[in-house]
Amino acid sequence: MTPERFEKLQKTLRRRQPDLRVLTDHVHKPHNIAAIVRTCDAMGIAHLHMVWPHDQFGHYGKTASGSDRWVTVHPHQTSLEAIQQQKKEGRKVIAAHFSDRAIDFRDYDYTQPTTLLLGQELFGVSDESADLCDEHVVIPMQGMVESFNVSVAAAIILSEAQRQRQQAGMFDELRLDQKEYETTLFQWAHP
Amino acid sequence: MTPERFEKLQKTLRRRQPDLRVLTDHVHKPHNIAAIVRTCDAMGIAHLHMVWPHDQFGHYGKTASGSDRWVTVHPHQTSLEAIQQQKKEGRKVIAAHFSDRAIDFRDYDYTQPTTLLLGQELFGVSDESADLCDEHVVIPMQGMVESFNVSVAAAIILSEAQRQRQQAGMFDELRLDQKEYETTLFQWAHP
Ligand SMILES: C[S@@+](CC[C@H](N)C(=O)[O-])C[C@H]1O[C@@H](n2cnc3c(N)ncnc32)[C@H](O)[C@@H]1O
Ligand SMILES: C[S@@+](CC[C@H](N)C(=O)[O-])C[C@H]1O[C@@H](n2cnc3c(N)ncnc32)[C@H](O)[C@@H]1O
Repeated sequence: MTPERFEKLQKTLRRRQPDLRVLTDHVHKPHNIAAIVRTCDAMGIAHLHMVWPHDQFGHYGKTASGSDRWVTVHPHQTSLEAIQQQKKEGRKVIAAHFSDRAIDFRDYDYTQPTTLLLGQELFGVSDESADLCDEHVVIPMQGMVESFNVSVAAAIILSEAQRQRQQAGMFDELRLDQKEYETTLFQWAHP
Repeated sequence: MTPERFEKLQKTLRRRQPDLRVLTDHVHKPHNIAAIVRTCDAMGIAHLHMVWPHDQFGHYGKTASGSDRWVTVHPHQTSLEAIQQQKKEGRKVIAAHFSDRAIDFRDYDYTQPTTLLLGQELFGVSDESADLCDEHVVIPMQGMVESFNVSVAAAIILSEAQRQRQQAGMFDELRLDQKEYETTLFQWAHP
């Protein structure tokens, strides 16, 4: 490994935002999962939670771009368990979801510890998951189709989160704890 | 057709932005094309230009979500021809492209007549296309991977364009000319 490469690993880890996470709730198409993992890496997200029942979806495959090397993927068997874990760890869970209580995605404060929940390609966020979430956010639609592709919706919302955290200076300080920083650096540098 | 449906068609057309366009330059994966068409519709974009050489890509198929019914797709044989047409019609062509002259995508003024050019999945924007463009814009990357999925990059940039145009009140007035408005309404209402 060149010194430049090692420095890039360090720089990336110094920007990671452990208290901004994504939770995919039964999203299952490989190209959507791949795009979401890649977007997470590029937006500084270290942890991706996936509700991914083994019996329904089979084994979670490696993504083409190799970006899953840079994002820790946490599989969960049920939405309930995944959402409860986020809350127990002190993060608000916000669903990207149309509902009566949904707010414009730009009106949410993403500098708070937050997990963004994304719904399934066809059926969206289930009623049970929606009920458990602290907030619902929507991206306004100007056209005839009713929704964005799920990886597109993720990217639009995360881009706003990234903008807010940038403005708040949250990419300028180490936000991983020292132990996670060192463990991850070691794993990345010695695959 | 119900009166509500007819009103939705009219409302959508009254928000269309004929002077904000997308040009895909040899983008060819069907799921990326599908996501881009769908995003265009949702962002109020009426015209999508596609450099899509017949001999290389075969026939352009219908997208799954049916969103290509709401966006006029213009095929082009070469990048040169497609870019020149945009300029002749008075739109700046900006490439989503890493280069020495690239600016942050949030620093561009999208209220100007603009066509956003997106590069191929693997090879990106060619040198020839890049040279022909008025500006290059980039979305900053915080992680290890070098680029976003192309439909994700399109969505992030168009979301910023939509935000700027919304703020400028450009969705509050009819921006299609009367003839295009009427022709399109007729086509949509009588498929
Ligand atoms: C293709 S959509 C699901 C559509 C589904 N028919 C529904 O009504 O929810 C997949 C996921 O993308 C996200 N999504 C898509 N468009 C969105 C929008 N405009 N605002 C917020 N989230 C959106 C949501 O998380 C949604 O569950
Ligand atoms: C997967 S990328 C192409 C990557 C290619 N290896 C390159 O170096 O350009 C496909 C297209 O998505 C767009 N894109 C992806 N990430 C981008 C970013 N961070 N900024 C601007 N455009 C981006 C560009 O139009 C690019 O040509």
